[in-house]
Amino acid sequence: MVAVGSSVSKFVIGARVGVGTMVNSCRHCSECEVGHENYCLNGNTQTYASKDRDGSITQGGYSTFVVVDEDFVINIPDAIDLAEAGPLLCAAITVYSPLRRWSASPGQKVAIVGMGGLGHLAVKLATALGAEVTVFTTSPDKVNDAKRFGAKDVVINKEGADFSKFNHAFDFALDTVPYKHDLNPFIPLLKPDATYCRVGVGKVANSNEIGQMNLVLYRNSFAGSNTGGIRETQDMINFCALNNIKPEIIKIPMNGIDNAWKNVIAKKVRYRYVIDIQAT
Amino acid sequence: MVAVGSSVSKFVIGARVGVGTMVNSCRHCSECEVGHENYCLNGNTQTYASKDRDGSITQGGYSTFVVVDEDFVINIPDAIDLAEAGPLLCAAITVYSPLRRWSASPGQKVAIVGMGGLGHLAVKLATALGAEVTVFTTSPDKVNDAKRFGAKDVVINKEGADFSKFNHAFDFALDTVPYKHDLNPFIPLLKPDATYCRVGVGKVANSNEIGQMNLVLYRNSFAGSNTGGIRETQDMINFCALNNIKPEIIKIPMNGIDNAWKNVIAKKVRYRYVIDIQAT
Repeated sequence: MVAVGSSVSKFVIGARVGVGTMVNSCRHCSECEVGHENYCLNGNTQTYASKDRDGSITQGGYSTFVVVDEDFVINIPDAIDLAEAGPLLCAAITVYSPLRRWSASPGQKVAIVGMGGLGHLAVKLATALGAEVTVFTTSPDKVNDAKRFGAKDVVINKEGADFSKFNHAFDFALDTVPYKHDLNPFIPLLKPDATYCRVGVGKVANSNEIGQMNLVLYRNSFAGSNTGGIRETQDMINFCALNNIKPEIIKIPMNGIDNAWKNVIAKKVRYRYVIDIQAT
Repeated sequence: MVAVGSSVSKFVIGARVGVGTMVNSCRHCSECEVGHENYCLNGNTQTYASKDRDGSITQGGYSTFVVVDEDFVINIPDAIDLAEAGPLLCAAITVYSPLRRWSASPGQKVAIVGMGGLGHLAVKLATALGAEVTVFTTSPDKVNDAKRFGAKDVVINKEGADFSKFNHAFDFALDTVPYKHDLNPFIPLLKPDATYCRVGVGKVANSNEIGQMNLVLYRNSFAGSNTGGIRETQDMINFCALNNIKPEIIKIPMNGIDNAWKNVIAKKVRYRYVIDIQAT
């Protein structure tokens, strides 16, 4: 933090801070009032490419500096490297929030489907929350990583794979796959009444096809979830600091993004690129 | 009840009883132990066309007599006509169970999508549970009925209809439509965190297409639900007796089923046919 306005009371110059995926919300709707600014009924203001309250388009994310209301600034604990804080404020909160919402905890079995930028943090967080984690991945070379991150079991998700060993095994499943894929083999792996939550979005992820009998037979739910509130984001990063949870990152300069993107598409990133704005 | 076995302790000959959609379950799994025989992890035995524990195929439903273990027999309160009990033991429990599961109650706004055999009972039950009910129907001539059954609002669901007046209005939505239809206009009508539950099944209802952003934006869930447990079914029919809730039925003899089926397809049934096995 290099400057503070005269009304700022929560931060001082030099504080280690971060800004997540949003910089404002209406502050008065029923969701904002309970700390769910991410579900603001009047629409929150995203950090980048979003229409700001003054009509301008937000430019955060790839900027050198950003001016943000203190209510939307996150304190970064000393134990968290600033480069590592980046993926925590987007990828980690996106998986932490549903893990909390659906009570990942000791005695609970949680499936993490997809282990990329979001999924690898989901494995670490669910494990730290006390749940027993099973990872479903299409990448056989991620098995060792999954176990290192805390997973008890790893299942290779390939065409025709037999998941029946895990029928009705999971209290919760979190799907982090960012593209459309066959969901129906996963629903029967839920316990009765359990939820399958998918957080991936994007043009190719836009539609889900779910067999009706699959949901009816054991009263299962299919849900979405969208980042987290400000207070919850602060809780998440404090939790990461206390439990030594860090994203696996590769730092690149701005001119490395084209090559990085190729690796993302080729499923070669392990597990998140962070752009160092000051590097050349 | 015309006969009882020597070990029967809950019923006597002459008792007014009914049999619902299932006649047995494993009795020892975690679901059976909590009264969710309908979600028996080893598969319950359906009343008709189901493989019984002895390997035979169950024939109930259209039979003159049926032999059932007393644990799967429902007591019919005196206030409930036996012909009216039929739809209660299938249609009503199928909507009562999710209305209870998702807490339809005073202060809650509930949408009922589709008002046929299940939907008309859902309107009556949700209203009796204290919820404020809005009906979405494709049949303009059902508006008066919906209000008579307790609905506060009725919306005609037709191509291009504008539901935006109801954005984020509902604590719960129950979809009773038995065929595949466009679900995406309904998800934004849910409050944040609320659930859209669909109970319709059948060959033409088998798949649901749900926009991922639709679920993500306000952490909504899409769920299924399957009838109810034995205790819950007894609770439901007692609740109906106490609250004077009855299905709207038309009694027909067995030889009237072809004509009745034509009316079902033509959306002309108001609202459930009951076959009188003894009539000719």
